[in-house]
Amino acid sequence: MSTWKLQQIGKKPKLRNPVFIEGLPGIGNVGKVAIDFMIDELKSVKLYEITSYAFPHSVFVNEDNLIELPKIEIFYKKFGGKRSDLLLMGGDVQPVDEVSSYEFSDKILDIIEGFNGKEVITLGGIGLAQIPKKPQVYCTGNSKKIIKKYKDSTVNDKLYGVVGPIVGVSGLMLGLAEQRNIEAISFLAETYGHPMYLGIKGAREILDILNKKLDLKINTAKLDREIKDIESEVIKKTEQLSEVARTTALKRLKGKLGQEMDYIG
Amino acid sequence: MSTWKLQQIGKKPKLRNPVFIEGLPGIGNVGKVAIDFMIDELKSVKLYEITSYAFPHSVFVNEDNLIELPKIEIFYKKFGGKRSDLLLMGGDVQPVDEVSSYEFSDKILDIIEGFNGKEVITLGGIGLAQIPKKPQVYCTGNSKKIIKKYKDSTVNDKLYGVVGPIVGVSGLMLGLAEQRNIEAISFLAETYGHPMYLGIKGAREILDILNKKLDLKINTAKLDREIKDIESEVIKKTEQLSEVARTTALKRLKGKLGQEMDYIG
Amino acid sequence: MSTWKLQQIGKKPKLRNPVFIEGLPGIGNVGKVAIDFMIDELKSVKLYEITSYAFPHSVFVNEDNLIELPKIEIFYKKFGGKRSDLLLMGGDVQPVDEVSSYEFSDKILDIIEGFNGKEVITLGGIGLAQIPKKPQVYCTGNSKKIIKKYKDSTVNDKLYGVVGPIVGVSGLMLGLAEQRNIEAISFLAETYGHPMYLGIKGAREILDILNKKLDLKINTAKLDREIKDIESEVIKKTEQLSEVARTTALKRLKGKLGQEMDYIG
Amino acid sequence: MSTWKLQQIGKKPKLRNPVFIEGLPGIGNVGKVAIDFMIDELKSVKLYEITSYAFPHSVFVNEDNLIELPKIEIFYKKFGGKRSDLLLMGGDVQPVDEVSSYEFSDKILDIIEGFNGKEVITLGGIGLAQIPKKPQVYCTGNSKKIIKKYKDSTVNDKLYGVVGPIVGVSGLMLGLAEQRNIEAISFLAETYGHPMYLGIKGAREILDILNKKLDLKINTAKLDREIKDIESEVIKKTEQLSEVARTTALKRLKGKLGQEMDYIG
Repeated sequence: MSTWKLQQIGKKPKLRNPVFIEGLPGIGNVGKVAIDFMIDELKSVKLYEITSYAFPHSVFVNEDNLIELPKIEIFYKKFGGKRSDLLLMGGDVQPVDEVSSYEFSDKILDIIEGFNGKEVITLGGIGLAQIPKKPQVYCTGNSKKIIKKYKDSTVNDKLYGVVGPIVGVSGLMLGLAEQRNIEAISFLAETYGHPMYLGIKGAREILDILNKKLDLKINTAKLDREIKDIESEVIKKTEQLSEVARTTALKRLKGKLGQEMDYIG
Repeated sequence: MSTWKLQQIGKKPKLRNPVFIEGLPGIGNVGKVAIDFMIDELKSVKLYEITSYAFPHSVFVNEDNLIELPKIEIFYKKFGGKRSDLLLMGGDVQPVDEVSSYEFSDKILDIIEGFNGKEVITLGGIGLAQIPKKPQVYCTGNSKKIIKKYKDSTVNDKLYGVVGPIVGVSGLMLGLAEQRNIEAISFLAETYGHPMYLGIKGAREILDILNKKLDLKINTAKLDREIKDIESEVIKKTEQLSEVARTTALKRLKGKLGQEMDYIG
Repeated sequence: MSTWKLQQIGKKPKLRNPVFIEGLPGIGNVGKVAIDFMIDELKSVKLYEITSYAFPHSVFVNEDNLIELPKIEIFYKKFGGKRSDLLLMGGDVQPVDEVSSYEFSDKILDIIEGFNGKEVITLGGIGLAQIPKKPQVYCTGNSKKIIKKYKDSTVNDKLYGVVGPIVGVSGLMLGLAEQRNIEAISFLAETYGHPMYLGIKGAREILDILNKKLDLKINTAKLDREIKDIESEVIKKTEQLSEVARTTALKRLKGKLGQEMDYIG
Repeated sequence: MSTWKLQQIGKKPKLRNPVFIEGLPGIGNVGKVAIDFMIDELKSVKLYEITSYAFPHSVFVNEDNLIELPKIEIFYKKFGGKRSDLLLMGGDVQPVDEVSSYEFSDKILDIIEGFNGKEVITLGGIGLAQIPKKPQVYCTGNSKKIIKKYKDSTVNDKLYGVVGPIVGVSGLMLGLAEQRNIEAISFLAETYGHPMYLGIKGAREILDILNKKLDLKINTAKLDREIKDIESEVIKKTEQLSEVARTTALKRLKGKLGQEMDYIG
């Protein structure tokens, strides 16, 4: 099977009970904004680049006029001492269909188990009809224990009925982690549900919680200052991807616009 | 192949010529309402939980604020004596495409053969344009013998022309059972064909027939009293699933809404 | 791979250089009407029933109130003497996607080679915007030799520009046969391009040509008399299948009708 | 796996560090027009014909009234001396989905590596809202080195922000070549973004660049004269393919047009 290509960068580190945190593109790109900022601020080290036949079949053009395959990357951060280290996953895309979304999530859990990881945190957004002034963060998870550990006065754990199912890798990793007895929790911040909106405020609320709970000391004030760069890059790729979708959709639509009768079956 | 995960709960029982009854989500959720009520009332024992890469790629949030992968479950009920025991299958979802619908149905028939099961009953709804006052129950099957056995004055066996094909697991299990010489019948109750409608009345008509024919002694009067709970749970998951479909559809639609000309092929 | 199930009925016959003729559902069901009538009139013997995970995931209900998996059947007709025998393929459906359409066509060619078959004839329709009074029959093929053999004054061999590509099994069998050095030709009769229309007249034009060229002595006058039965059966199954498509389409549409903002990504 | 069929024509040649150039159907068919003209003018020799289960499931009817499976072809041109030889790939179609687009691109790279090829050039179009008078050619690639080699005053290397991602084989080959350390560049000429438009002018701009950089001595003035033939053939196949798409789309649409209530689930 050549569906998944995992390229390791540098030497595989020894990590201490790493906590895995995921933030892929999704509603408001809340998870992606948060994880990309963490990766930078923590001076994390890139460990894996993943490309796949189950990612969109196109390449991006970057600012250096070089092309890039769509990819998902895993970084690590060693803290030393008795603290848990971190594994951080961000990327350009999600797998293109249901089956490959399951497959990918299970492969990432294999990697986490390989590092003896015991905790998974996924990040995402809850799309609202308007821009929230002070976005509320909700959590859900695969055990009462992990929810109790991460819940505090700024996190709402009454998600039932507020939203529908959690779709894609952020959701599946919680469920598939349970089958391996890995504790997993998801933080979901309210955001504006428009495809081109960047949920910066929601991302900061989530970062504040992770700061507290994991003692990260990330300066989230910088998020506003650096946000212009992130914005331009994320929006560029999101635009590009929606163009891929559009091209594909157009190919399918073309047939419908012609006349109906002159064909063979 | 990791497409299907079958998790056994507890010890595998010895069952006497079990009759297998299926009720998955479908029109009016008639089959699901009937089977879930039977599973409860008969104090059935859970035997298998099935998750799959071919189920929707999302997780539900339940009332305890814990997530759940979409799953299909099989329970059993031992009666003792010379009576046939029961295998009862209910769940949240159906497989996501044609091929996996066939694969799943054949896998379930493997399980049934493993218990030396000789009879399969599938339950479903017939969607009408309005709410039926006294829903008629129809039957069809893969042999005249089983239809003769289960047909009585309250069951109409003139289904030809009344409905189209029987789609999904409820239909395929009849056809694939025939290839293994397993007798199979389907009971289909009229119901209102709206996605959010719960065909309680239709489910009760089917339960009355199963009560008579299988001597189940289920108190169907309780169905009305307990229906509030079932309703809230079933509708919640149905809503959640249609949100998954919506999200997926939205992703595909986004491209169409942009302008048409500025892309590369 | 359990995608294709080939069930043999009775003993495998010895056939003399059999000519294979295909007529599956398509525009105007011209091919299906012609082949089903031939199978009956020639008192052909059923040899194979094919079911598949790559056929629609539903069962039909027949006039005896029994269910039937969608299937494709192959019959044979032995003539004796020095004449070529016949293999005749008809059925309810075509495979559900591109890849399985190729796979199926290649599997049928394996069977034809197993009988040392040297010639393939596929039948289909050309959809017009109105009902043709005297439908013209066109032919195309994979060699000039077979076209020369079957072309006469009633068959038009100027198909280029008249129609688009030949889609599905009728087309692919011509192309894949060429890769095996099997001569193959297609007869396509004009018909009305409406999904519920039955191209009886076009089918009769094709049968007249096959009568002449293969000396079949089929009484095509009977086609009009017996057409009522064929009509009711074919239309019933076509209706049923379009209901499957509708159900599937509806499931996909449901999500789009809800509101847009209250979901998670 | 019988998904890809590679048929070799004649003897495999020894090629000197061949440069591979791709031009498949796409926006304005710029790449296809350019490559087909090069193949003719250079009197290239056909080496491979590729058919695939992952190409559209239909056959074309050609001017000789013979059918043809959709195919992609690879030609070679030996120059002798110390010059790099050429491998040229043109064809009727692109693979039908994301995964097969990746698979196909990787298989072609296997072939290129088998010939010790060190350079890949892909050709395509950039769709504009109106017909450009003097189409600009842009380039992008997988290394600064190859861009520097091919860039001159007539080629714009500021593609970032001008277009979205490069979709399909033309894009993927750049990205997948990088994973094998093969240098790859893409030339994209502006053209009118209408499906039936043939980007002749854009193709000529690209040919002029290749003439200069690869010393091909192709008489591009002939392109205008011979364009009528190319036009008729390309447009015919494009029309035919969009009819396939239409047929498929129509099948999917049929269900939506019927009434909603009379079906079973």
